[in-house]
Amino acid sequence: MSTQPRLVEVRKNVLKQNDIVARELRQRFHDAGVFVVSLVSSPGSGKTAFLEKTLTLLRPDFRVAALVGDLATENDAARLARSGAPVRQITTGTLCHLEAAMIRDALTDWAMEPLDFLFVENVGNLVCPSSYDLGENLRLVLLSVTEGEDKPLKYPTIFNTADIAVLTKMDLAEAVEFDIAAAERNIQRVRPGMTVLRVSTRKGEGMSDWLTYLYSLKKS
Amino acid sequence: MSTQPRLVEVRKNVLKQNDIVARELRQRFHDAGVFVVSLVSSPGSGKTAFLEKTLTLLRPDFRVAALVGDLATENDAARLARSGAPVRQITTGTLCHLEAAMIRDALTDWAMEPLDFLFVENVGNLVCPSSYDLGENLRLVLLSVTEGEDKPLKYPTIFNTADIAVLTKMDLAEAVEFDIAAAERNIQRVRPGMTVLRVSTRKGEGMSDWLTYLYSLKKS
Repeated sequence: MSTQPRLVEVRKNVLKQNDIVARELRQRFHDAGVFVVSLVSSPGSGKTAFLEKTLTLLRPDFRVAALVGDLATENDAARLARSGAPVRQITTGTLCHLEAAMIRDALTDWAMEPLDFLFVENVGNLVCPSSYDLGENLRLVLLSVTEGEDKPLKYPTIFNTADIAVLTKMDLAEAVEFDIAAAERNIQRVRPGMTVLRVSTRKGEGMSDWLTYLYSLKKS
Repeated sequence: MSTQPRLVEVRKNVLKQNDIVARELRQRFHDAGVFVVSLVSSPGSGKTAFLEKTLTLLRPDFRVAALVGDLATENDAARLARSGAPVRQITTGTLCHLEAAMIRDALTDWAMEPLDFLFVENVGNLVCPSSYDLGENLRLVLLSVTEGEDKPLKYPTIFNTADIAVLTKMDLAEAVEFDIAAAERNIQRVRPGMTVLRVSTRKGEGMSDWLTYLYSLKKS
């Protein structure tokens, strides 16, 4: 297609612009002493359930808030708000990822108290969010056992740009004959040395490992 | 962002170009008497398992083949080839969807016998494939019960551009407390009148309904 090179060039400009905004955000987060975690995954991997649980568990001891991106609906913001934490929805329309400017704009007119942790739930997508820096300290990729062990090999970029992987819906692992060893092997092939946690949000299993991990980063 | 309007404009050109190629493909498929079905869904919804089962069941009576798109790996082509049908992998690199030109190119140097059915498995993504016509006769969107009932509302465009929806992994519906009525209601809100089938590829349930539906379209 003759238009392809021009499209790539324009995309590069958009990315460059995104990186500038992300850098500003990172500086701002650093100055404010807030630790920012973004969550990426396929649709339906359990990002919102995992985040709701995380917010609920952190709330007694920390000041937490969340931004959540979706093409349409404000359902996820409503679900997350049940945790009692301040939550804001970012609706992206037809865009399959969040961009740094959307985070900046969502924070601009939001009179929030100083925070310990800010969580950013990206649009459910294993491709588009990869290339967009949001100024976060930690990018977490979720993989639910119902999706299959092969996903890290089929979507290497998103696993490669993440800092930690969380296997979700572990209570269903046996029912779907999920091969945990194969999944971890595939993750390590794409991103050697990556920390991989296992959780079942429904059963509450593995959440303390995740919080211990998070505390250790916040302190360091 | 100042580059946004230009990006949209270039995207429009790419889409226009895609539509021209898709139109040529559709004419070619029509002349050859082949019925083309494309499959879209989130990663891990069971597209490949559903397609492998479909190919295996059709093979005794029909001439079938498949094209399968992925960012990386040829795993899915290998899985589909177990059905005995000719299969070709299209590797998209960083692109989160198939385009009509990729279908054309994959078919150009492929010496295939005349076909009754050609299946095209798109990249696992609930956003990007929406806008790309591949010249198919039927677009099928899969939604696995493990993803949750809310997905049609959160990804309306992909459901709106599809012709039929298939709820997969029905054998897990009870374990994940999937609300079938809510899911169907959400699909109907986005695409009123849409046919919704329910299958469990693992148990083989619902496949005969799907094949009956497919035969009726091929004949008409």
